[in-house]
Amino acid sequence: MTAEIQAWLPELLRALRPNQVTQSPSVLDTHSHDESYHTPHRPDAVVFPESTLDVVRIMEVSAKYGVPVVPFGVGSALEGHVVPVKGGITIDTMRMNKILDIRPDDFLVKVEPGVTRVQLNDALRKYGLFFPVDPGANASLGGMAATNASGTTTVRYGAMRDNVRSLTVVLADGSVIQTASLAAKSSSGYNLTGLFVGSEGTLGVFTEVWLKLVGIPEYTVAGRAIFGSVADAVKASTAMVGSGLSLSRVELVSDVYIETFNRIEGTDFAVKPTLFLEFGGTRGSVESSIAMASEIAEDEGCVGWTAVDDPADRARLWTVRHEAAHTFMKQFPGYGHMATDVCVPLSELPDAVHHAMELLREHGVHGGIIGHVGDGNFHLSLAVRRDNEDDMTRASAVNSELVKHAISVGGTCTGEHGVGLGKRKYQALEHGKALDVMRAIKAALDPDDRLNPGKLVDA
Amino acid sequence: MTAEIQAWLPELLRALRPNQVTQSPSVLDTHSHDESYHTPHRPDAVVFPESTLDVVRIMEVSAKYGVPVVPFGVGSALEGHVVPVKGGITIDTMRMNKILDIRPDDFLVKVEPGVTRVQLNDALRKYGLFFPVDPGANASLGGMAATNASGTTTVRYGAMRDNVRSLTVVLADGSVIQTASLAAKSSSGYNLTGLFVGSEGTLGVFTEVWLKLVGIPEYTVAGRAIFGSVADAVKASTAMVGSGLSLSRVELVSDVYIETFNRIEGTDFAVKPTLFLEFGGTRGSVESSIAMASEIAEDEGCVGWTAVDDPADRARLWTVRHEAAHTFMKQFPGYGHMATDVCVPLSELPDAVHHAMELLREHGVHGGIIGHVGDGNFHLSLAVRRDNEDDMTRASAVNSELVKHAISVGGTCTGEHGVGLGKRKYQALEHGKALDVMRAIKAALDPDDRLNPGKLVDA
Ligand SMILES: Cc1cc2nc3c(=O)[nH]c(=O)nc-3n(C[C@H](O)[C@H](O)[C@H](O)COP(=O)(O)OP(=O)(O)OC[C@H]3O[C@@H](n4cnc5c(N)ncnc54)[C@H](O)[C@@H]3O)c2cc1C
Ligand SMILES: Cc1cc2nc3c(=O)[nH]c(=O)nc-3n(C[C@H](O)[C@H](O)[C@H](O)COP(=O)(O)OP(=O)(O)OC[C@H]3O[C@@H](n4cnc5c(N)ncnc54)[C@H](O)[C@@H]3O)c2cc1C
Repeated sequence: MTAEIQAWLPELLRALRPNQVTQSPSVLDTHSHDESYHTPHRPDAVVFPESTLDVVRIMEVSAKYGVPVVPFGVGSALEGHVVPVKGGITIDTMRMNKILDIRPDDFLVKVEPGVTRVQLNDALRKYGLFFPVDPGANASLGGMAATNASGTTTVRYGAMRDNVRSLTVVLADGSVIQTASLAAKSSSGYNLTGLFVGSEGTLGVFTEVWLKLVGIPEYTVAGRAIFGSVADAVKASTAMVGSGLSLSRVELVSDVYIETFNRIEGTDFAVKPTLFLEFGGTRGSVESSIAMASEIAEDEGCVGWTAVDDPADRARLWTVRHEAAHTFMKQFPGYGHMATDVCVPLSELPDAVHHAMELLREHGVHGGIIGHVGDGNFHLSLAVRRDNEDDMTRASAVNSELVKHAISVGGTCTGEHGVGLGKRKYQALEHGKALDVMRAIKAALDPDDRLNPGKLVDA
Repeated sequence: MTAEIQAWLPELLRALRPNQVTQSPSVLDTHSHDESYHTPHRPDAVVFPESTLDVVRIMEVSAKYGVPVVPFGVGSALEGHVVPVKGGITIDTMRMNKILDIRPDDFLVKVEPGVTRVQLNDALRKYGLFFPVDPGANASLGGMAATNASGTTTVRYGAMRDNVRSLTVVLADGSVIQTASLAAKSSSGYNLTGLFVGSEGTLGVFTEVWLKLVGIPEYTVAGRAIFGSVADAVKASTAMVGSGLSLSRVELVSDVYIETFNRIEGTDFAVKPTLFLEFGGTRGSVESSIAMASEIAEDEGCVGWTAVDDPADRARLWTVRHEAAHTFMKQFPGYGHMATDVCVPLSELPDAVHHAMELLREHGVHGGIIGHVGDGNFHLSLAVRRDNEDDMTRASAVNSELVKHAISVGGTCTGEHGVGLGKRKYQALEHGKALDVMRAIKAALDPDDRLNPGKLVDA
C-alpha cells in the first residue's frame, strides 16, 4: 500500500462502516474492467455506499486527498468506462438498490442508482406502467443514465436523456444538487439534467434518479419482414418511421447472423436481411399500423411478412434478433467481442451499412450487422482474440474506418455505448471546437479532475 | 454618444455594411422591450447580421471592447428576455431568414435563426412534413430554441429541446461551434445542444438551427369535452395522456374565459371548464383513440362531447381556445397582460389550479386560466395597468404566490416562457445549489459576462 493510500484509506474507513470498504483482490479485479476489450486496471479500494450521505462522505475524502473516484453500476459498459485508469476509489452503487417512490399519476418513479432495469419493470407491472429504455443488458439505472443508454425501443420512446426527469447528484466538492424539478417541462435555468445524463461519471455521482414512465400498451404485435437487400430493408424502415405508425421497435439483422443462427440452432429462416418489428398501442392503432407497415414493406420489395400477437409467439419470433450476436460468437470459441456503435442520419444508413460490410471483407474480420435502423444506429459484432495483436489491429482498423465514415456523413462515433476510453480518440474529429466547450465545463465542475479521470473529454 | 460607444461603433461599422448597423431612435425603441410588462431599456446600437461570419465579427468587437450583446428574434418573449438592461449591441436576426436545407429522408431541416415558425411550416407542407412546436406566437426559431419554447402540441411532440438536433453557435470569444452531429441519437461528449437550448442568449448566439421534423398525420380530429369542474377535466386529461392515445393537443379553458367569449362574441357555449382536444395519426388510430377518449371523459363526468374532422369545423371548434386570452383582454381597454407560467407534476394540477383561482379572488385581480394540462403547465392572463402601482403589486403577488406554490409541490416557475428578467428572483428557490453549477457554466463560457447580461442566472 503506497503512502498516498495509507493517508486516505483510514479516513474512508472512518467515514463509512467497515463492510462498506474493501481492498479484497477479487473485488478489485471485478472492478478493474467492464464488458469490453480494454485493458483492465484495478482501483485501490472499492466502496459500497448505502445513501447519498455516504457518497458525500466518500467525495469529501476524495476532495481532501485528491483521490480519483469512479462510479460503478453493474459494469456492463462496452468502452472501458469503469476502468480506474488512475486507481483510486470505485464507488459501486449495488447497495443503493431501492425503488424509492412510485407515482403512477405523475408517470414518474424515483430510484436509487443501483436499481436495475428488470427490477424496476417487475415492480411497475402492477401499475400498468413500464420504463421503456432497453439496452439489452440488465444494467443499473444510474449507469444507463450516465451513458445515455438506449436501444431497441428508442425509435418510439427515446434514449435515457429523453426519459430522465431529474437527478440527485453529488458533485466533486461533495455538495448535492437536484438537476431539475419534477415538472414535465420547464424553461427555468440551464438544462443540467441533459448535461449530467451521458456524463459517464465525469461530472458527479448520481444518487437518485427520477424517471418518466409510460403505460403498457393495450395491444402488442411482433412482426418480421424479409428483404432482398439491406438497402430495401432500410428504406422500408425509414418509411415506416416517417409514417407515424405505432411502431415500438424496428431492428435489422443481417443475413450473416441468420445463416449462423440456422446452422447452430437448426432453424431454417430465410437467409436474407430481416427487419424485426414491434407495434404497440390501442388495438385500432396497432391494426391500422400493421396494415400500413405491410404495405410499405411490400412497396420496398419485402419477400416475406409475418405478424403474431400471442406473447409466446412474439418472443419466439424475436429470438433470432435477441440471440443474434450471442449465437454468432458461439462459432468462435475463445474469441471476445468488440462492438462498434456508429449512428448516421437515416438517409446515409444504406451506404454506411454497405461500407461496413466492405470493411469486414477488406480487413478479413469476422462480424455481422445488427441495427437499430429506425434511429440510424448499427453495430458490428467483431470476433477478436484480445491477446492476438493481429486480430486487434484488424478489428480496430474496421472500427476506426467505420467511425470516420460516420462522422464524415454527419453521424456520431457512438450512438449509445458512449465514449469511455475507446471513443476518446474520435472526440476532436466529431466535436471540433465544441470539445473545448466540453472541457471548459469539465474544468468548471471538476477542477481537480478527480471524477472518472482519463475518460470522455480527456482525449 | 458616450466615449465608450465612440470607441466600438466605428469598428462595428467597419466590420459590417453601413445598412447593417443603426442607432435610429425608433429602431432602438423597438429593441428596448419584448411583449412583457418589464421596464424597457434601449440598446446603444442594433445590428442586422446576414451570416455566421457577420455574427463572429460583431462578437469580436464585443470581446475587444467589452460590449454587451443581446440576441433578438422577433421580440415576442414574455419575461423581458431581450431588454438590453446594460445597453450595448442588440443582434437582430431578422435578415438571417433563409431555410438552408430541407432533408425529408432524414426528417431534418436546417434554418437560419430568423426563420419564423409559420414561414417554415409553409415551406415544409409540400413534403408532407411539419415542425411541431407551436408557441402560438409566430416566433423566430432562434428565439424559440433560446427559450426552450413549447405549447399546445408538447403533450405529443415535446418542447424545443426535444426537437432541436444541433445548433451552430457563435461563442463569447467569437469562435464557432456545432453542438452535435445530425445523428438521431448519440452518446458522444456532453450534451451541448440541450444546454444551449433554453440559454436565452446568455451562452452564445445561434446562427444555424437543425430541427427535427415529423410527418403530417394522415387524419386529424378536433374534440371538445365539457366538465362540471376543473378537477374532473384535469383528471380526464391525465387519464387520456396515460393511455397512450394518438392525442396531439389537450388544453383546458376555464369557465371565466368561456363566459367572456359568449358575452363578447355572442356565442352560447356551456360556461364550464372545457377541454379542447386534437387527435392525429392513421385513421384507425385516431378512431380508436377518440372512442377511448370519450369513454375516459364520460368516466370523469363529462357533460358534453363533440368531435369533428372537417378542417373548417376543426378551426371553428378551437376558436374559443385560440382567442380566449385575447377576447378576455378586450374587456379591459387600456390594460396590459401579465402571463403567469407555472408547471407542476400532473397529480398536483387540480390543487394548483384551484389555488390559482383562490389567489385571483383573494387579490382582486382579473384573470382566467388556460392550461396545457397534458403537461401540467397553465397560465393565468392577468389584466394589469402597467403604470398603476396597485395593479402591478396585486398581480405580482398572485404571480409570486403561484410560483412559490408550484415550486413547493415539485414544479417550476416557468413551464415555457423562460426566466428573462421576471423569473430571476425564483431561481435560487427553484434550483438551490444547482444555481451555483449554472453560474459556474456561465462563468466558464462567458467570463466577461457580455452575453445578454442581467438575465437568467444573474439573479
Ligand atoms: C450484451 C450487452 C449489450 C448491450 N447493449 C446495449 C444497448 O443496446 N444500448 C446501450 O446503450 N448499451 C448497451 N450495452 C452497454 C451497457 O449495458 C450500457 O452502457 C449501460 O448503460 C451501462 O450500465 P451499467 O450499470 O453497467 O454501468 P457501468 O458499466 O457500471 O458504468 C457505465 C458508466 O456510467 C458511470 N456510472 C455508473 N453509475 C453511475 C452513477 N450512479 N453516477 C454517475 N455515473 C455512473 C460509470 O462511471 C461509467 O462511466 C450493452 C452491454 C452488453 C454487455
Ligand atoms: C401572444 C403570445 C403567446 C405566447 N405563447 C407562448 C407559448 O405558448 N409557449 C411559449 O413557449 N412561449 C410563448 N410566448 C412567448 C414567446 O413567443 C416565446 O418565448 C418565443 O420562443 C420567443 O421567440 P422570439 O423569436 O420572439 O424571441 P425573442 O423574444 O426575440 O428572444 C427571446 C430570447 O431568445 C434569445 N434569442 C433570440 N434569438 C436568438 C439567437 N439566434 N441565438 C441566441 N439567443 C437568441 C433572446 O436573447 C432572448 O433571450 C408567447 C408570446 C406571445 C406574445
